[in-house]
Amino acid sequence: MKGIGRKTWTSMLLALAIASGNVLAQTDPLPSWNDGAAKKAIVAFVETTTTQGSANFVPPAERIATFDQDGTLWVEHPIYSQVMYCLDRVPALVKAKPELANVEPFKTVMSGDRAAIAKLPTPELMKILVATLTGMSTEDFSAEVKKWLASAKDPRWKRPYTDLTFLPMQEVLRYLRANDYKTFIVTGGGQDFVRTYAEEVYGVPPEQVVGTMGATSLHYDKNGRPYLVKDPKLLLNDDKAGKVEGIHLMIGRRPHAAFGNTAGDQQMLEYTGAGDGARLMMLVLHDDAKREYAYGPAAGLPATRVGTFTQALYDEAMKKGWTVISMQRDWKQIFSFEK
Amino acid sequence: MKGIGRKTWTSMLLALAIASGNVLAQTDPLPSWNDGAAKKAIVAFVETTTTQGSANFVPPAERIATFDQDGTLWVEHPIYSQVMYCLDRVPALVKAKPELANVEPFKTVMSGDRAAIAKLPTPELMKILVATLTGMSTEDFSAEVKKWLASAKDPRWKRPYTDLTFLPMQEVLRYLRANDYKTFIVTGGGQDFVRTYAEEVYGVPPEQVVGTMGATSLHYDKNGRPYLVKDPKLLLNDDKAGKVEGIHLMIGRRPHAAFGNTAGDQQMLEYTGAGDGARLMMLVLHDDAKREYAYGPAAGLPATRVGTFTQALYDEAMKKGWTVISMQRDWKQIFSFEK
Repeated sequence: MKGIGRKTWTSMLLALAIASGNVLAQTDPLPSWNDGAAKKAIVAFVETTTTQGSANFVPPAERIATFDQDGTLWVEHPIYSQVMYCLDRVPALVKAKPELANVEPFKTVMSGDRAAIAKLPTPELMKILVATLTGMSTEDFSAEVKKWLASAKDPRWKRPYTDLTFLPMQEVLRYLRANDYKTFIVTGGGQDFVRTYAEEVYGVPPEQVVGTMGATSLHYDKNGRPYLVKDPKLLLNDDKAGKVEGIHLMIGRRPHAAFGNTAGDQQMLEYTGAGDGARLMMLVLHDDAKREYAYGPAAGLPATRVGTFTQALYDEAMKKGWTVISMQRDWKQIFSFEK
Repeated sequence: MKGIGRKTWTSMLLALAIASGNVLAQTDPLPSWNDGAAKKAIVAFVETTTTQGSANFVPPAERIATFDQDGTLWVEHPIYSQVMYCLDRVPALVKAKPELANVEPFKTVMSGDRAAIAKLPTPELMKILVATLTGMSTEDFSAEVKKWLASAKDPRWKRPYTDLTFLPMQEVLRYLRANDYKTFIVTGGGQDFVRTYAEEVYGVPPEQVVGTMGATSLHYDKNGRPYLVKDPKLLLNDDKAGKVEGIHLMIGRRPHAAFGNTAGDQQMLEYTGAGDGARLMMLVLHDDAKREYAYGPAAGLPATRVGTFTQALYDEAMKKGWTVISMQRDWKQIFSFEK
């Protein structure tokens, strides 16, 4: 039995692996969360839906969790990062089409007057979005977004926008995936925009990003190579009822868990909660002016352009037993770059 | 060292597990395929894209394979199963709306005159599809399709339509998945229709079914429970160029392998083939009148309503090195119910 020495080694390594597995299983999957109702709700949900024999057991194939992005997974205040991208693209756009320099809303954006830009009405802002998010190939768009993400910085933290994800939510994503949940982003942001970084930043692959969708059309270059062009035609506005429609379109199953932070997520949480068995519905409340921001009616503050956590949504959450996550009280640490 | 006995057992079990893994790896993953160019192309593609260190290695997250359904994964001749479903739904529709009994094309369908039904022009057929595929909740629709699938039978084989999948293609699906490929169905058929059985029949979950997509809208019942209604509004016709647009919309990555059988799959294969590294493009040729059907110009036969494998597509396949699968020569067995 010459092999016994090696086999003993193998068995010891195996025993060690099992032992460390046990140790890992006992470590806290949500270390950035303070002990409290929110953390308890997440852990209880995962345990009851993944324990064989539990009345709430969900087969792995059906484990779907959906996450809003802006304000839920990363900072949305004072302006969505994608809107910053679009504003930053305006100079290149005007360079390519000089006739736009004297046309609103491009003129205001080119003026650099931040206060005036912030006051642009939504239909004017939409013109900027359409002009900067459509009309190019999907490949050129993706390359442009990646270039921007590598250089643009949030003015408050002086860091790339992709650094501004919430560590506690990253832990929830990983914890759910470790328990065989498929995690989807369901965002009002552009599907193609979010897909450029979702895999690297959140571990969410492109096919699990559901966002606002535009039509594309197939073209061929002079060598006969096919490519897709982003057309200025909206297929689905992935906000409010559109989030439920987007979930049906892209996933085709009702989620067991859904996370949001505004009235734009209300229908997604209602739809999730209307299913049988254990369901987890959570809303992030931005009530931490010091470490992040405090805004919106649910925090007793005025509504803002972004993230409207209305009083009505807060009341519905209380009535239906959805869990409100207080950034101030529930999160020990907000960003991974904090000490 | 009391534990040594158990550890030796463990190590022996481990060694056994490794050994049986090797045995499994050596068994033929495609037993229903005759040895030939088609089978060789599939095996070579899987090996070159999944072997660490290979110049063509594809990271697991990027392993995407797309399959047309009708005529590629199951029988499409003489009529698509989904169209049979729609025709079978007409009596119930007329019962609910008696005024349709004397309106074309419903009148012809109610007459039961098969020859006349087969001759209905496409726009008339579309009216039947819209009337039977929209206007109900997604839940009611799914329940209705499941009920139909459980009772309807193909007239030639006297078996449920879901028995008529091609065993060799089922083996390809499993072989690719065993090698960490995510398998997607990309079909001109209705996305909601195919999702009702794709997981059970093909092992493809709803979120990996890309099909012709219709809009839905969110409603609430009198108890405030949200539900989705299928609207008569087309979002994307998942055929020809639409297959590429559907792949971008639903997957967001270029496939590494694509399987089809008609001119409706041409653009999907072109798009797949336009990527870097090793790519696999395959077309099923229906040239087996005895065991299945022989039809279409590429088989030297007239075009049919279904499955137009045009001569132009055949020529493009030859020119670009796509592999044509001859059902007659490449498939040892076509259906799993054959002896």
